[in-house]
Amino acid sequence: LRIALIGYGNVGRAFAALLQRQRHAYPFRIAGIHTARHGTAYGDGRFGPPASSVEEFLDRAPSEIVAEITTLNPANGEPALSHIRAAFARGRHVVTANKGPIAHAYAALREQAAAAGVQLRFESTVMDGVPVFNMARNNLPGVKVLGFTGALNSTSKIVIEAMRQGQSMQAGIEAARRLGITEADASYDIEGWDSAAKAAALANVLMDARITPQDVDRRGIARLTPERVRELAANRKAVCLVSRARFNPTGIRVRVRAEVLDDRDPLAAVSGTSNLLLLHTDLMGTIGTAGINCGVEQTAYGLFSDAVDIARHAGSVQF
Amino acid sequence: LRIALIGYGNVGRAFAALLQRQRHAYPFRIAGIHTARHGTAYGDGRFGPPASSVEEFLDRAPSEIVAEITTLNPANGEPALSHIRAAFARGRHVVTANKGPIAHAYAALREQAAAAGVQLRFESTVMDGVPVFNMARNNLPGVKVLGFTGALNSTSKIVIEAMRQGQSMQAGIEAARRLGITEADASYDIEGWDSAAKAAALANVLMDARITPQDVDRRGIARLTPERVRELAANRKAVCLVSRARFNPTGIRVRVRAEVLDDRDPLAAVSGTSNLLLLHTDLMGTIGTAGINCGVEQTAYGLFSDAVDIARHAGSVQF
Repeated sequence: LRIALIGYGNVGRAFAALLQRQRHAYPFRIAGIHTARHGTAYGDGRFGPPASSVEEFLDRAPSEIVAEITTLNPANGEPALSHIRAAFARGRHVVTANKGPIAHAYAALREQAAAAGVQLRFESTVMDGVPVFNMARNNLPGVKVLGFTGALNSTSKIVIEAMRQGQSMQAGIEAARRLGITEADASYDIEGWDSAAKAAALANVLMDARITPQDVDRRGIARLTPERVRELAANRKAVCLVSRARFNPTGIRVRVRAEVLDDRDPLAAVSGTSNLLLLHTDLMGTIGTAGINCGVEQTAYGLFSDAVDIARHAGSVQF
Repeated sequence: LRIALIGYGNVGRAFAALLQRQRHAYPFRIAGIHTARHGTAYGDGRFGPPASSVEEFLDRAPSEIVAEITTLNPANGEPALSHIRAAFARGRHVVTANKGPIAHAYAALREQAAAAGVQLRFESTVMDGVPVFNMARNNLPGVKVLGFTGALNSTSKIVIEAMRQGQSMQAGIEAARRLGITEADASYDIEGWDSAAKAAALANVLMDARITPQDVDRRGIARLTPERVRELAANRKAVCLVSRARFNPTGIRVRVRAEVLDDRDPLAAVSGTSNLLLLHTDLMGTIGTAGINCGVEQTAYGLFSDAVDIARHAGSVQF
């Protein structure tokens, strides 16, 4: 199968390298790579001037799968959303690491994919490629997800851990930035928008919530102080930015809060760039998935596993 | 598809009830139930005198799938192993919650299943039905498991927690027994045999280790004292019976030990009947799966998910 890449940052490069390394067992081919800034490459792999539009790129780079890995615009999921729709319009399957479209418009995308007879996969949008969506899809037949609880944001963990060690919030943000996990504007993480977007994506996919990040009852860690964190630590308590969702009588309630947890709570035990998601279900009780020290390699693997899943479902290739 | 049950204890009854509740979406039928003590039932569901042998039962209860859920004999995996082979000999797929056969003879069973053209599934043998084996099979294409670390034994957790609260080991064992998770003879858990059997099963399936529980370098918690546990707790340390495996230059090393961990270690944070398994992999780094407060319902669900997986692979039913 041929894959066309839209976007070629750290994740895109790691994904391309992984496809190259796995090519004997999983014979995907890169049909082209499009970036607005650095130009466009077609089958020969050489970057020339950028295509005038994503549509032009897709038309000139025939492929079965499109990988959408541009930078997130958290406010509305664009331009990734339009890229995905352009791919669907051409009968292409889509894999994406971009949580915007899933957090903002999953129900519509699901219907559009079904109408076009193609698949949409997005394992890397939450938990950096650790199987969450594919676990629910492949391994939990008949199970209804009743809610979830997750510690999903790395920056807030690093900032809170820094405060626990007596540093300021700003010093914690700098530490997260040095790890390459925080954007220039850290407020997206600190104010809980990243956690809200991931919660919206999870709720949309696993609970058919049909919400956007703006619908999440969200409060970040901006007002947390080192004094408060240390006072709690002395009492064996930890602060953690937690995303929660559950069905309630009026619908689905999704919220993000800095919660005070026991030090020995599993959610408190995943620190740094590790994360934990607990799914509350009807038939399987509560089950969790964790990613330990995840980064760009895992995100790239999530895209790869999605592409393999599509190939299996398409039935065109037996891996 | 028709399912014949060998064994009908707590797990068997929960499994039968689950099949009944799910019958509209997943139309399995129970072809018969065989127990040595309480008799044998065929299609009509009424228990009569026991069949003279498992082979006779299987011949009189035609089915596509056999569910092996008898009581474990930890020393050698029998009689479950013979039951599974009798099912294979009749061209039946097998699902089992019995870790003995997987811990003692997985490589041989895998070959025998392939030769018979049938499937063997065993999700419930470790982690009470939480997706572990099916996750590796379905969601991690191309991934090589390099090792694992797990807190897999509930009885030891409850005993150590009781000692942390100042009770004796014996009081902890009584508490575990009241929860229904410990056999009359608790030494199987306390001396680490349960952890060793689970570690052997995981290593056999995920790393092709071809070992038995007797090959695991095993030390239990029998010599642990409440004083020691409390002294460690005062220093924010926890004791946990941990199963580990990794490749080393001479092969695969699998061991079970009571390890001293930081209170905030994820392995220390899963208590009671919860458990956590971390898989160390090449392409996905370290990923974890957790089951929170798992019991017989989850074990039954694992059998159900295995049966659905077989139906999907067999291609005979589209769920």
